[in-house]
Amino acid sequence: MNTFGRYFRCTVFGESHGPALGVVVDGCPPQIPFGMEHLKPLMERRRPGKSPLSTPRQEQDEVEILSGIFEGKTTGMPVAMITRNHDAQSGAYDTLRDTARPGHADLAYHQKYGCRDHRGGGRSSGRETVSRVMAGALAMQVLLRQGTHIESRICEIGGESDPERFEEIILRAKEEHDSVGGILEVTATGCPPGLGAPVAGKLDAEIAHAMLSIGAVKGVEIGSGFAAARMRGSVHNDAITSAGYASNNAGGILGGISTGAPVIVRIAVKPTPSIAQPQQTVTMDLKDTTVTVKGRHDSCIVPRIGVVAESMLALVLVDALCEQDVVLSFRSR
Amino acid sequence: MNTFGRYFRCTVFGESHGPALGVVVDGCPPQIPFGMEHLKPLMERRRPGKSPLSTPRQEQDEVEILSGIFEGKTTGMPVAMITRNHDAQSGAYDTLRDTARPGHADLAYHQKYGCRDHRGGGRSSGRETVSRVMAGALAMQVLLRQGTHIESRICEIGGESDPERFEEIILRAKEEHDSVGGILEVTATGCPPGLGAPVAGKLDAEIAHAMLSIGAVKGVEIGSGFAAARMRGSVHNDAITSAGYASNNAGGILGGISTGAPVIVRIAVKPTPSIAQPQQTVTMDLKDTTVTVKGRHDSCIVPRIGVVAESMLALVLVDALCEQDVVLSFRSR
Amino acid sequence: MNTFGRYFRCTVFGESHGPALGVVVDGCPPQIPFGMEHLKPLMERRRPGKSPLSTPRQEQDEVEILSGIFEGKTTGMPVAMITRNHDAQSGAYDTLRDTARPGHADLAYHQKYGCRDHRGGGRSSGRETVSRVMAGALAMQVLLRQGTHIESRICEIGGESDPERFEEIILRAKEEHDSVGGILEVTATGCPPGLGAPVAGKLDAEIAHAMLSIGAVKGVEIGSGFAAARMRGSVHNDAITSAGYASNNAGGILGGISTGAPVIVRIAVKPTPSIAQPQQTVTMDLKDTTVTVKGRHDSCIVPRIGVVAESMLALVLVDALCEQDVVLSFRSR
Amino acid sequence: MNTFGRYFRCTVFGESHGPALGVVVDGCPPQIPFGMEHLKPLMERRRPGKSPLSTPRQEQDEVEILSGIFEGKTTGMPVAMITRNHDAQSGAYDTLRDTARPGHADLAYHQKYGCRDHRGGGRSSGRETVSRVMAGALAMQVLLRQGTHIESRICEIGGESDPERFEEIILRAKEEHDSVGGILEVTATGCPPGLGAPVAGKLDAEIAHAMLSIGAVKGVEIGSGFAAARMRGSVHNDAITSAGYASNNAGGILGGISTGAPVIVRIAVKPTPSIAQPQQTVTMDLKDTTVTVKGRHDSCIVPRIGVVAESMLALVLVDALCEQDVVLSFRSR
Repeated sequence: MNTFGRYFRCTVFGESHGPALGVVVDGCPPQIPFGMEHLKPLMERRRPGKSPLSTPRQEQDEVEILSGIFEGKTTGMPVAMITRNHDAQSGAYDTLRDTARPGHADLAYHQKYGCRDHRGGGRSSGRETVSRVMAGALAMQVLLRQGTHIESRICEIGGESDPERFEEIILRAKEEHDSVGGILEVTATGCPPGLGAPVAGKLDAEIAHAMLSIGAVKGVEIGSGFAAARMRGSVHNDAITSAGYASNNAGGILGGISTGAPVIVRIAVKPTPSIAQPQQTVTMDLKDTTVTVKGRHDSCIVPRIGVVAESMLALVLVDALCEQDVVLSFRSR
Repeated sequence: MNTFGRYFRCTVFGESHGPALGVVVDGCPPQIPFGMEHLKPLMERRRPGKSPLSTPRQEQDEVEILSGIFEGKTTGMPVAMITRNHDAQSGAYDTLRDTARPGHADLAYHQKYGCRDHRGGGRSSGRETVSRVMAGALAMQVLLRQGTHIESRICEIGGESDPERFEEIILRAKEEHDSVGGILEVTATGCPPGLGAPVAGKLDAEIAHAMLSIGAVKGVEIGSGFAAARMRGSVHNDAITSAGYASNNAGGILGGISTGAPVIVRIAVKPTPSIAQPQQTVTMDLKDTTVTVKGRHDSCIVPRIGVVAESMLALVLVDALCEQDVVLSFRSR
Repeated sequence: MNTFGRYFRCTVFGESHGPALGVVVDGCPPQIPFGMEHLKPLMERRRPGKSPLSTPRQEQDEVEILSGIFEGKTTGMPVAMITRNHDAQSGAYDTLRDTARPGHADLAYHQKYGCRDHRGGGRSSGRETVSRVMAGALAMQVLLRQGTHIESRICEIGGESDPERFEEIILRAKEEHDSVGGILEVTATGCPPGLGAPVAGKLDAEIAHAMLSIGAVKGVEIGSGFAAARMRGSVHNDAITSAGYASNNAGGILGGISTGAPVIVRIAVKPTPSIAQPQQTVTMDLKDTTVTVKGRHDSCIVPRIGVVAESMLALVLVDALCEQDVVLSFRSR
Repeated sequence: MNTFGRYFRCTVFGESHGPALGVVVDGCPPQIPFGMEHLKPLMERRRPGKSPLSTPRQEQDEVEILSGIFEGKTTGMPVAMITRNHDAQSGAYDTLRDTARPGHADLAYHQKYGCRDHRGGGRSSGRETVSRVMAGALAMQVLLRQGTHIESRICEIGGESDPERFEEIILRAKEEHDSVGGILEVTATGCPPGLGAPVAGKLDAEIAHAMLSIGAVKGVEIGSGFAAARMRGSVHNDAITSAGYASNNAGGILGGISTGAPVIVRIAVKPTPSIAQPQQTVTMDLKDTTVTVKGRHDSCIVPRIGVVAESMLALVLVDALCEQDVVLSFRSR
């Protein structure tokens, strides 16, 4: 299942070391201006090889638009985009062909499919998020029409919340052949009230799905989230005034429907499972062995996940906008 | 959007004070034994009116099966079930017709649909979970074939983790016209490896969707969850041995696919928004007012949500089982 | 798979001799007036037992609305409706428990599901169309907002196109323990241009799906249909003028999108397979035998299928209206 | 809506004069051998420019596989394929930018989307079927596992059923600046019984959808089809014997489920609307004008549609196979 969304449907494909990553966006409204100028800034944010904090894999990550754009605008037809892989060094993965890396999906894929493209993690590589960012760039152009804006910030890395220490923590983990995770917050402002559809299409449920679909994400919370479980109702309830909500413990969503207040989401990112230390594991035929994952990895993917999480939130919001359009259209008939 | 699942599709319907709540389960495999004996124990666990801890609303919650069962077994045809409402006291909600209760979806519904069934919360009432439990009862019968078992436990109520104090905390909140939330853990044992489909159908993404679709749930985490964000990779990675996984920080899911280890999910439940205290709010035409929510409410819904969360996990797992069946069938052709 | 539509989603359920037939309509826009007065006339048209031309089974076919309606209007929440079975004479089918009726799905169901509710044809009975008519009644109320009107007429019965002979042909077939089929034409006027979405959501493709999903329908054609295959382009092309299309060979659909001209659909209905003559067949374990299908059957179902076909066309058109609303909403942003 | 199938999901994209046509097949089972050797023969059958009967547009139609294949086999991950356009002569369409060609979707697209890629028909060009044939090639490889084989034959061209006259009829129409249509029959042998799912997933309904989604197809019939409407039940019913069905008026499908007999489908193809004669039409702002469609067109597309219709039938059958796998898997648990 590689399609996100019911109205603004994004079908993603591609492997880490295959010819290309790609996405087909079906259901995009017509007449949305879209081109390289909208893709480039977002693609650049997740592109590897830019700093000592990320994998040294060199990819220019240039997008080719294959369909759905005519004279600089969408036409309502499916928009297909691809990004080719250039710096795949598949040979480095030969030793991993029959060995399961702990913390990765290698064994699970093998057990399910009886085969897998092991090169660079194949489909389960973080590189698949290229597809999501391409789709996200288009979704953000659609949101612009609505005045909705999305941004993210790093709340924590390695348990530390002082941004000045983030780089130091990551580099230390790297030196120690280890890795760290962190917490990201993604916020959408300018969302109209009414997004989300009870009960299986609740906005928070769709957001949770989108976020947990990102590799390495192990938790998600909306508004006050887990802290809400320790509040009393009299504290947690956001008072409503004629000028708007007096607080935003709800994170902009009540009963699965947006309130008009900022939508606030936090996600927990686990430490990168690829570490250059010997780890106990098994071969594909379940014999004990050890593995040391060499190669080119991020010691912390939190900084590069921000734009991916923003993209996923954008996809969910556009999908919800489309859903609401049907309701509002009939109300005005 | 009121359908959960792609293979085992559960379409839910009904309002708190309407004639009935119901569900149609489409895609249920044939020849699964199913009847009142499987429904009763689960329905009883979420039924209101049983103790001073829950709402005094009296409902017998007796299920009527309308289709899809023949001689005590499923036939492969859609299974429709309904539970009638008996103790709706709609008059008590008359004053809420034009007033938005803080923490509820009242205003958001009104803004989206231009109308709403205000009686007892209408569709956004917790009573809609009756539909989920009916579907869950059937899903659990399907899981039995696979040897999968689901259970839940309360981790915290009102910030307190000692089970002996839970009742006291809830009753105190009730006396003080307030409410409390908590944290639940749901676990599935006996899941085969291979459940979940990259990348939009990842098992953890589907679980997150299912859990956040439950009213009052504001966060979800898998395995070590948010704590993972503070671990190093060398600590978080679960070593794999020929005898199985040595630990389970992953919560039974890697790369969105089940590993065979127990699937572990925790959810954060906010305090019930209905409290008998005056709260600042607005009318449907956005004029300032105050509201005191009287009527019949749980001061803490955590104890009654357990069986709902188990049901939702069951729905997700059956759906994933069906998806894997297609893959495995072709492998054996 | 018992759900029709992607936006206006109708999930149908029920067996011929089970407790009830039903439908859940999810995605219905709010504030559409709906009640018994809209259901009754359509239900009456397909109701059995009214004349010597149809089965003598006596059913009042009274609908109960279980959800989604508040104060006489839809609320945007799922609308569930059921019709209970009253005059099921299941004993009459005992002999058919292990015998496949030719022209029916008995053997195919058995081979697929390993079991079936044989009573009255179970799920494969024409009685399931009750669900479609209930949904159709709601869809037609939605279409009213748009000024779209649907009607049908019988083109042929038993190969004869003179309406004055229809009754005679059916009664003669009945006397001879045989049955006849026919051809129906369904027309929608007042459809706006723009309904249908390339390429998998083409309006004609969706209509074809809807019509062939009705039991006994073996063919469908749009506009000039099969006759188009024998025309030249210069004859078949409908000239376009500033006052509209000069002819309507296209049947109101070009490139899968409605043109604004009337949508014209014809369907071929096979003769009822249940006939009171001995026929060669097999038992469920594939042993040769003969069967004479006694019981209560229509000798020609064409007259009762009209309202079903109208309902299906209504479902497709409402679904397409919703799809177009998303496109148009963005164009006006 | 550009996705076919629920299990074996084919998302198609591309315009006639855009960079490429493509398809993403999501849900393809793993370990299916697939490569150019399977694509080439089918692509060659629909490729233009091979004979005086078809458009002189020269396209090599070479496929590039972008994902989902590893070492010559599918991996269970999405298979993306593209075919680039090389011989697009967009300038020839400049005059059609503001003029609606009769029999084409030009005006309908414009009215719906407010814009369109007019070059070569854009998305509504017959060239989009390249995507379907690529997907069909993969589907046929999957069907091979099951022993199912699909083929098609031309029944009629221009009302004539003698194959020796087909070429003559087409060339005469071409000389006279006109076009002809025809009737195709597509047959699948070796289908297991049990394909298709009541009632919205009936096999014949899905086939009808797939066939009518092909541009220029105006009708579809299964088995005896429209002729069934003129038969009596005693003639139309196929007797069943322990050795199989004695006849096949049903066209291999009863109650929407395959019987194991050959699946037989016929489709009506309208005459190509592009003809080099002056025709009455309008501009996009609905002013009267005339148009003579010059450029490169087939005078009859029936010969090239065969492989497209076979591909569509293959997609439907694989989808139904997957659906049945879920049922059968549970029956063997």
